[in-house]
Amino acid sequence: MNSNITVDRPTFVTHLECSLTGERYEADQLHGLSRAGRPLLVRYDLAAIKASLPKAMLEARETDLWRWRELLPVRQTSDIVSLGEIETPLIPLTKSGGANVLVKDEGRLPTGSFKARGLVMAVAMAKALGVTKIAMPTNGNAGAALAAYATRCGIETIIFCPDDTPEINVREIALQGGRVYRVNGLIDDCGAIVAKGAAQGLWFDFSTLKEPYRIEGKKTMGLELAAQFGWKLPDTIFYPTGGGTGLIGMWKAFDELEALGWIGPERPRMFAVQASGCAPIVRAFDLGLEHAERWEDAATVAAGIRVPKAVGDFLILRAVRESGGKAMAVGDPAILKAVDDAAKQDGLLLCPEGGATLAAYREALRLGWVEADESAVLFNCATGLKYPMPAADAVVDRFAEIDLAAL
Amino acid sequence: MNSNITVDRPTFVTHLECSLTGERYEADQLHGLSRAGRPLLVRYDLAAIKASLPKAMLEARETDLWRWRELLPVRQTSDIVSLGEIETPLIPLTKSGGANVLVKDEGRLPTGSFKARGLVMAVAMAKALGVTKIAMPTNGNAGAALAAYATRCGIETIIFCPDDTPEINVREIALQGGRVYRVNGLIDDCGAIVAKGAAQGLWFDFSTLKEPYRIEGKKTMGLELAAQFGWKLPDTIFYPTGGGTGLIGMWKAFDELEALGWIGPERPRMFAVQASGCAPIVRAFDLGLEHAERWEDAATVAAGIRVPKAVGDFLILRAVRESGGKAMAVGDPAILKAVDDAAKQDGLLLCPEGGATLAAYREALRLGWVEADESAVLFNCATGLKYPMPAADAVVDRFAEIDLAAL
Repeated sequence: MNSNITVDRPTFVTHLECSLTGERYEADQLHGLSRAGRPLLVRYDLAAIKASLPKAMLEARETDLWRWRELLPVRQTSDIVSLGEIETPLIPLTKSGGANVLVKDEGRLPTGSFKARGLVMAVAMAKALGVTKIAMPTNGNAGAALAAYATRCGIETIIFCPDDTPEINVREIALQGGRVYRVNGLIDDCGAIVAKGAAQGLWFDFSTLKEPYRIEGKKTMGLELAAQFGWKLPDTIFYPTGGGTGLIGMWKAFDELEALGWIGPERPRMFAVQASGCAPIVRAFDLGLEHAERWEDAATVAAGIRVPKAVGDFLILRAVRESGGKAMAVGDPAILKAVDDAAKQDGLLLCPEGGATLAAYREALRLGWVEADESAVLFNCATGLKYPMPAADAVVDRFAEIDLAAL
Repeated sequence: MNSNITVDRPTFVTHLECSLTGERYEADQLHGLSRAGRPLLVRYDLAAIKASLPKAMLEARETDLWRWRELLPVRQTSDIVSLGEIETPLIPLTKSGGANVLVKDEGRLPTGSFKARGLVMAVAMAKALGVTKIAMPTNGNAGAALAAYATRCGIETIIFCPDDTPEINVREIALQGGRVYRVNGLIDDCGAIVAKGAAQGLWFDFSTLKEPYRIEGKKTMGLELAAQFGWKLPDTIFYPTGGGTGLIGMWKAFDELEALGWIGPERPRMFAVQASGCAPIVRAFDLGLEHAERWEDAATVAAGIRVPKAVGDFLILRAVRESGGKAMAVGDPAILKAVDDAAKQDGLLLCPEGGATLAAYREALRLGWVEADESAVLFNCATGLKYPMPAADAVVDRFAEIDLAAL
């Protein structure tokens, strides 16, 4: 019914290249990091795409993620593993944000988070390249997305998460067929275990940016935004930044769209939002460094962005600086207040990481880094339903004489 | 950006009529039940819609719920209160269901359930008609949707739910600005309190089918299905049935689409799915009755369909019978097994009520009521993330020498 995932379409991947050195790697082979230990980026014959895909053809298609097939790495239609990757809506946050503030609500994706974008792509490529067993470290949502897609196409998964990962994530991973282990550490401790097993040949390592295709899935956030904004882009983007795949991916998407002639050279100012309790990118940004040191004793209510060390640090910093944006840290109280305000004033339930983007937007407005008349897109990266909410325990007795007017 | 909610469009409501007696009521006035105590149905000038809305014009619009403006009751664009009512995807359930089984995943809607469809419409009409305070009984999800939309446009809400309503529902209602009370009873006990307050003039009663517009929102499920199936309809629909608004709404939608000439006279066989522990419609269906008696001591894991007595009982039974379908009850063990199978085999997390439709489909297949080569649509009415999942507690110690191959 959705021809995007049933009809064959031409593909245009030419090769992969190291994001640090530019060294070239063959397409259609299994890759991890580059020889320099850095993420690989997928490259396309953009001139050929430009010649064969008129924008009107793209616009006539259904709006889901697979609309962008020519700009994605999956060659064979039969390798697509779909759970319904809809285009996520933009929702005005008029009262708690402002007249020009839109939330991109990524919680509507399969498994309730934007992790589905990256994992749907990475799993399809793993399937295409013959992978049968995958391991991954996760703060929760990525593991849930991996388990769902891998289970759907019969790939085995082993997932390691910090021992304080939300119970709901651990359970959904297991229910969706993943084997899940809690580890007494943070996500990079989990990553070390995954790396060790991968070195032993036990499984393929699906850590953020350690395989080349999650970023291609995440870049669809940028592609969608361009289409939703009528082939302009918003003035500013506030992105909750842990591993930063999405921010890097959007930056790549904008370049590809410009090469196609679908957008101009203008770019949004990119705001990488971290929590005060784990802000390695912000520290490196403020110090003018190209790489970020590991953040010790990381702690924040926004567990999804509790990433002490990101392998793509230099790519995040480069994109933020080129865009004229900032890396910003916000405290847990501001995050929780933002979540409460968005729900109580605009009826929209954000996840803590989404709340962090609203808190950062407010702070940026206060500091004059963004003007109230500029358009701002805040990424709500997961459904707020996955996170703890305050108790609410009023009771009435149906057998009693209730003074309803007093309720 | 989405012109469906920013551009004015002509409206075609002519009047409302009693679903039992056909008695006529004025449009654009506040109504509850008819004088006969039955639901009111909204009627449109379908001939005028046919003359002014070519199907191609509809198809060129964005696919969200507001695409169907001409078939909806909201007159003024400014009364639309939106949280991003996307068209929900159809997801194949190949392994746990079968080759022709699709799940319509309503969990992607705002507040994570299909209740958003009904409430987005009812709240817009309440806003248009000057309502400032609403009360509603709920098993959870309807209350969450009401609170979100009402908060968004400044309408006050008071919500009553059974005392064993899932904690997540109670909390999301409160966080989204609703005043919520637990009641030591079932949903109809809550409904009695709401009715009493409404009679005292304290609030407007938003109970299922007691105001005329939730059904108009729910009917978009039928409109969407027709568009998604290329203006044919599936052979069978399995619908989790509590109050039954959606089933009644879809049946109404199909008639309206036929009047527009967009579909033919063929209809899906409608399967109203209930739980064995609360199956008043099934009992009435089996006994050949037109109305259903209250079900005493209702109990099921699928709380959303724990509705002992439905005010639209005769409309549900009429639609099921006219369609050549059945009313079916499934037990809690079959429901839980279906949820587990869909997650473990197809990577899709259903809510218990969605699981009930899969259980019912399997049973219908076994009984020969549906053939494996017939298309079937199962409604997953809410995200599975809102419901308890089995614990999964494996742990590894990062300080220990782990035999990774043994994990």
